[in-house]
Amino acid sequence: MKFTKMQGLGNDYVYIDCFSEQVAKPEELAIRIADRHFGVGGDGLILICPSEIAPVRMRMFNADGSEGKMCGNGARCVARYAYDHGLVTSRSFDIETGAGIRHAEVGESLVTIDMGEAVLDGELEEAITVDGKATRMTPVNVGNPHAVYLVDSLETLRGLDLDKIGPAYEHHPRFPEGVNSEFLYIESPTELHMRVYERGSGETLACGTGATAVAFAAMRLGRANEKVTVHLLGGDLMLEQLSDGHFRMTGPAVEVFSGSYFSE
Amino acid sequence: MKFTKMQGLGNDYVYIDCFSEQVAKPEELAIRIADRHFGVGGDGLILICPSEIAPVRMRMFNADGSEGKMCGNGARCVARYAYDHGLVTSRSFDIETGAGIRHAEVGESLVTIDMGEAVLDGELEEAITVDGKATRMTPVNVGNPHAVYLVDSLETLRGLDLDKIGPAYEHHPRFPEGVNSEFLYIESPTELHMRVYERGSGETLACGTGATAVAFAAMRLGRANEKVTVHLLGGDLMLEQLSDGHFRMTGPAVEVFSGSYFSE
Repeated sequence: MKFTKMQGLGNDYVYIDCFSEQVAKPEELAIRIADRHFGVGGDGLILICPSEIAPVRMRMFNADGSEGKMCGNGARCVARYAYDHGLVTSRSFDIETGAGIRHAEVGESLVTIDMGEAVLDGELEEAITVDGKATRMTPVNVGNPHAVYLVDSLETLRGLDLDKIGPAYEHHPRFPEGVNSEFLYIESPTELHMRVYERGSGETLACGTGATAVAFAAMRLGRANEKVTVHLLGGDLMLEQLSDGHFRMTGPAVEVFSGSYFSE
Repeated sequence: MKFTKMQGLGNDYVYIDCFSEQVAKPEELAIRIADRHFGVGGDGLILICPSEIAPVRMRMFNADGSEGKMCGNGARCVARYAYDHGLVTSRSFDIETGAGIRHAEVGESLVTIDMGEAVLDGELEEAITVDGKATRMTPVNVGNPHAVYLVDSLETLRGLDLDKIGPAYEHHPRFPEGVNSEFLYIESPTELHMRVYERGSGETLACGTGATAVAFAAMRLGRANEKVTVHLLGGDLMLEQLSDGHFRMTGPAVEVFSGSYFSE
């Protein structure tokens, strides 16, 4: 089975071109192929499929076999692949995702995805007590739930022991279904720094919906312009809020290798 | 650049066939290609090269770019590759490694490597105090240094928090250059269970020289036969001591995928 490995900010998936390959049981394949020691290795599996409502459709499966709705870093890679491999002829086109249609624009090196709207999901500066400590956070929904916590310096941000403290944030009773938690330091109205503890995954190098939530929170708090650079562990994303409220996310999408997978 | 990803007990390396490919700076390539998010991903890079003193030569590079001498799981994969891809015509042949010549035998599914001799490197039941606790260990040299610690049950072995306690074993003053630490439960004279905390790598799924050290220690303590199965997190290895003192190690070696790596 032919595949391509791609990454955006270190968020790496195994991509299969279902215009030419057939995948009978993607849930099972995802578990095997995403294994970093016994398989190809990746954060999961993404199928690039024909669609009846857009030029391409992406289906994403996490490393545990569960199907996800949408992944910003993955959508950029799907767009890059679709253009580079001739599945589309224009640099500007729609992608069908589990969260609806997302518009993509493929540049020379960077790719832009319309992430849709972000919605405040409670109070802007909501009081919350995590692990016995009283603090405040901004709850944001970007198709999935986020909680954004402000920290006061870059040193504080870098020093957070997320492996240790993360679970208390993820499983806080305020979010009975779990939540993605972002820790944000605002350097200036155009430069944001974040780390993310993803629901079900722990700390990751990058999270596109998390970066969108962070940009939204900083803007609503009156501390960021409508166009910001978000610095994540895996690299940088540019987030811009358009006049219709939608967020445009721009960042890298890189083909790392392609290959044939033997273990069927 | 073409490569093949192979694994033995989950100990996975990127293999490059240098009978056909050229690698100018393997130390630099190892760092990039072994990265699990931005590269192909693996425990390191192994070059399969022509040799003047054997049918093939293996050069292994860790994920940090440092060159290693020998890796039992890697040697099995090199043997499997050399036979399956026609670099050798016999199933029984020598491999040149940084630790000298190693004989290999390629079976239908399993591969056997002569691991050479193991040497007691101190007292058989040497008293040692680790992290304030007095215990005993067996120091063994298998080309690299090992310390084997007996535990009293499978539950104890499984319950060890090696991420937490491992560093105190690795950097014990008894071993100024660091040591590979094995934790061994002897179920019977033919069944051994181990976990390993590798010098410079932390806990790993499998370690061929570690399994050899464990078999040697159990035999010298009079508690194992000359042929044993060693159960590791990544799978099983068979270890047999021959009359000349050499250890023969038999285990799986699997080609997972092959591909072309883009980022030069």
